[in-house]
Amino acid sequence: MRLIRKIFTKSRSPEDGIFFDTIEKILGFAPITLDIYRKAFTHRSSNKTDENGNSINYERLEFLGDAMLSAVIAGYLFGKAPYGDEGYLTKMRSKIVSREHLNELGKDLNLIQFIESKVPVHHFGDNIHGNVFESLVGAIYLDRGYVYCEKFIQKRVIVPYVDIARLEGKVISYKSLVIEWCQKEKRLFHYDIFDDNGIDGQRLFGVRLSIDDKVIAKARATSKKKAEEKASQRAYFAFQEKMDKK
Amino acid sequence: MRLIRKIFTKSRSPEDGIFFDTIEKILGFAPITLDIYRKAFTHRSSNKTDENGNSINYERLEFLGDAMLSAVIAGYLFGKAPYGDEGYLTKMRSKIVSREHLNELGKDLNLIQFIESKVPVHHFGDNIHGNVFESLVGAIYLDRGYVYCEKFIQKRVIVPYVDIARLEGKVISYKSLVIEWCQKEKRLFHYDIFDDNGIDGQRLFGVRLSIDDKVIAKARATSKKKAEEKASQRAYFAFQEKMDKK
Repeated sequence: MRLIRKIFTKSRSPEDGIFFDTIEKILGFAPITLDIYRKAFTHRSSNKTDENGNSINYERLEFLGDAMLSAVIAGYLFGKAPYGDEGYLTKMRSKIVSREHLNELGKDLNLIQFIESKVPVHHFGDNIHGNVFESLVGAIYLDRGYVYCEKFIQKRVIVPYVDIARLEGKVISYKSLVIEWCQKEKRLFHYDIFDDNGIDGQRLFGVRLSIDDKVIAKARATSKKKAEEKASQRAYFAFQEKMDKK
Repeated sequence: MRLIRKIFTKSRSPEDGIFFDTIEKILGFAPITLDIYRKAFTHRSSNKTDENGNSINYERLEFLGDAMLSAVIAGYLFGKAPYGDEGYLTKMRSKIVSREHLNELGKDLNLIQFIESKVPVHHFGDNIHGNVFESLVGAIYLDRGYVYCEKFIQKRVIVPYVDIARLEGKVISYKSLVIEWCQKEKRLFHYDIFDDNGIDGQRLFGVRLSIDDKVIAKARATSKKKAEEKASQRAYFAFQEKMDKK
């Protein structure tokens, strides 16, 4: 990876350099062919074409990314839920790759910052976020292959968002589980924001959960609500034996 | 691969040996964990369960295989048809992975020979062929990973069946193209069966196409009609410049 970066650095413009660094941070590994990623953020309104007259925009990559995302999530669920039949697996996957969820993922990564378009970005609906999330996955497949798609999806979809218990509808909110438990056990709980900042044009909230004045868990997310939920989930897993009545 | 086979040979029963050899022939590479492939052919009527009470049958593998097949075909079409937009790619893929087509693929590989079931095999409808074709792809993914899925699909789906021109509806039948050309050019053509045999319980027809008494192409397939079509396609590509009026 260091070698790739070195070779790349030689010929890149300062603008390329910023794009490379930001994409690398999002991916968690170095991109090789930067142009593929540019295409992943080129809206059809740009009216770009290649030397054969084929239009250059992210729609084809979206098709590719959608297929890779479905395959990776299928592989993940297959291993994670050995008890689930075909119907269960299909239902779980469609929850994970739902339009709403993909839009949220794209929004959290602030992918819209890269979009090249003749239409002003604020004119787009919510779906643009999910669309470019898919096209980014397609770009990773083209650039680095299936295993890197898996890595990216693991890091950006599965770890932060996929919670089988919640998807199964068994857990609606970890925050409510924590509150319920505290009330039952007569403990004092307190959520507070310890950090509120913007990095790379993205606002981040840091939330701390204390029980009986002891800090139990911290988490950062793009909204206060999400950060509270994340911190509650961490606390829940830490205290699982105590809170789980099963 | 030789090493794998050696290790495996040590502990396998004669029955395992036959299964291993037949599966290896179909895959084009050695399987590693044979049990995964057995599961790929276990019908739910067998009522098998694992030590945790989860049922063992091919339906979960079918889900996995379907996802891998879609991803591999997406990757293939993306590279093969740089002119096609998202809609085109989606349409082409659904032609390739159509129920009818998958059933044909499973039937041609005679996968039904491996099925373990309490229901007599002739009671199943046509879909069983496609279902176990998908579960076999799922088994390959589990056993050897994505790249081997790609190899298998390339060998068993793309090379023998995927013909973009025909899928686009531009070519309905290569046999009719050949006949048309011969009539126009006042050439004599002749199709004859030079071979008709059964290997591994599967009937194979060898068909020869001669033009002006010279053998132009040969092909083998599971029906006379398919073998004629394959031979015609080979002849067509050999004579493309002459026959193509574009």
